[in-house]
Amino acid sequence: MPLSKAREMMNEALKLAQAAAAQGEVPVGAIVVKDGVIIGRGANRPLEHHDPTAHAEILAIRAAAAHLGNDRLTGCDLWVTLEPCAMCAGAIAHSRIARLYYGAEDPKGGAVAHGPRLFEQPTVHHRPEIYSGISADESAELLQAFFKDRR
Amino acid sequence: MPLSKAREMMNEALKLAQAAAAQGEVPVGAIVVKDGVIIGRGANRPLEHHDPTAHAEILAIRAAAAHLGNDRLTGCDLWVTLEPCAMCAGAIAHSRIARLYYGAEDPKGGAVAHGPRLFEQPTVHHRPEIYSGISADESAELLQAFFKDRR
Repeated sequence: MPLSKAREMMNEALKLAQAAAAQGEVPVGAIVVKDGVIIGRGANRPLEHHDPTAHAEILAIRAAAAHLGNDRLTGCDLWVTLEPCAMCAGAIAHSRIARLYYGAEDPKGGAVAHGPRLFEQPTVHHRPEIYSGISADESAELLQAFFKDRR
Repeated sequence: MPLSKAREMMNEALKLAQAAAAQGEVPVGAIVVKDGVIIGRGANRPLEHHDPTAHAEILAIRAAAAHLGNDRLTGCDLWVTLEPCAMCAGAIAHSRIARLYYGAEDPKGGAVAHGPRLFEQPTVHHRPEIYSGISADESAELLQAFFKDRR
């Protein structure tokens, strides 16, 4: 995939991250794509939904699975602005997402390239292809601005 | 807590595991308890809900958080018949569950005493008190019977 196309896809996730920030939520956004079409969107919403599991990735995965009428997202891609946490990485494995594209690294909460490195665990049931660093600056800037405003 | 009381609580989760099996789902059940009152129930339902995140723990946590109108389950206990996976252990950390009680061990999919051992990771944001082995035989028998029937 050309970088321009990858940035275009990640831009859709960044719009959802901006929407999360506008609601006072940590700005993370995610989309699930199948055959080039967005079939699930998620903007981080734990506070508004009163739901600790309402991370962008979980919401996008649930929407995509509901759309397909299937608990497996075989052949689908997940685009997310921030490195997924353990909960979301686990959901990615359960849903059989084929390719994971993420933006900024998350050394404190991430579970893909940091912490438990879930997809490197011998017991993981499914390991997607992983591409990182796409529009990472834009994603990190959104997060930094959000936390700066809250201080 | 006396063992008889612990088995009584786990029995409520086992009933939900049986309900999951009756629907053709892997038999795992979970409850969230606050001040001795059950405020969230979950029976494993990924197939029926077309939702890869619909594990018993996630459903119980989401129900409890909706009940409290809060994304944090401070002071709450989670009782689940099987050792949680990485997704569910991550959700337990996000929800700030105070005490985790589980039944059978899950060497293949578990992420508490096996695999990534999520609560032993230095980057984990919250670590509950953990008690295991409660009614473990009943829980394991349900799972064994379920998988034997499907062969």
